[in-house]
Amino acid sequence: MEISPIGYVRNKAEEDTRFEDMASEIEILPEFVGGLFRIEECEELDVIFLFDRSSFYKMKVHPHHDPAQPEVGVFASRSPKRPNFLGLTRVKLLDCKDNILVVKGLDAFNGTPVIDIKPARPRDQVGKNHK
Amino acid sequence: MEISPIGYVRNKAEEDTRFEDMASEIEILPEFVGGLFRIEECEELDVIFLFDRSSFYKMKVHPHHDPAQPEVGVFASRSPKRPNFLGLTRVKLLDCKDNILVVKGLDAFNGTPVIDIKPARPRDQVGKNHK
Repeated sequence: MEISPIGYVRNKAEEDTRFEDMASEIEILPEFVGGLFRIEECEELDVIFLFDRSSFYKMKVHPHHDPAQPEVGVFASRSPKRPNFLGLTRVKLLDCKDNILVVKGLDAFNGTPVIDIKPARPRDQVGKNHK
Repeated sequence: MEISPIGYVRNKAEEDTRFEDMASEIEILPEFVGGLFRIEECEELDVIFLFDRSSFYKMKVHPHHDPAQPEVGVFASRSPKRPNFLGLTRVKLLDCKDNILVVKGLDAFNGTPVIDIKPARPRDQVGKNHK
């Protein structure tokens, strides 16, 4: 199956950035801007993105890239070296203007392709918000 | 970008099933079984799957498919009619044996392709579990 970006991450993250405190922008492509309608009512979002710096995957990994920690299976980890190279992070929505979302806590580098965005709360709670 | 299944959902769900109470199996393909190592230490998992019954997407949707509810953008909803057709559900892990995970709360039909599985808790908590 083919997937393609709905937007891209814009930030100044570097290897040693503390992502949990950092604000990032997500720039949504023009053809998907309609999908943001009323997204400002969501406090938290689940962002699915592509680990575009990964070129291979492993079945077992050391948590936190720390060889001192015993290996776990890749599906018991959030390692970027995983089949399909998809990342997933729950972020806080700080602002939304035109095609730009400002979010906090997105652990992705500048230029990362964003594949999907969903409200983080369970479906029925989200429904209640929209009544 | 190409994505491909790591496994498939096995259950008896029908259109009116209450997914939140239902157990499903996820049958992992043989080549990815190593990725399940120590996954039984995870209480909750985030499962990314493909809405393989969707053939088109819309920019605005009515929450819960209910025309009485005002429209929201697709990224403010969990509608299956979304760009890239990816579903995401947090499930409870009930059991893991060989290549079969038994999970509770997966709102996906029998035969649904599973794209990725991740531990639901934040990375550093998961790390602590594995020390």
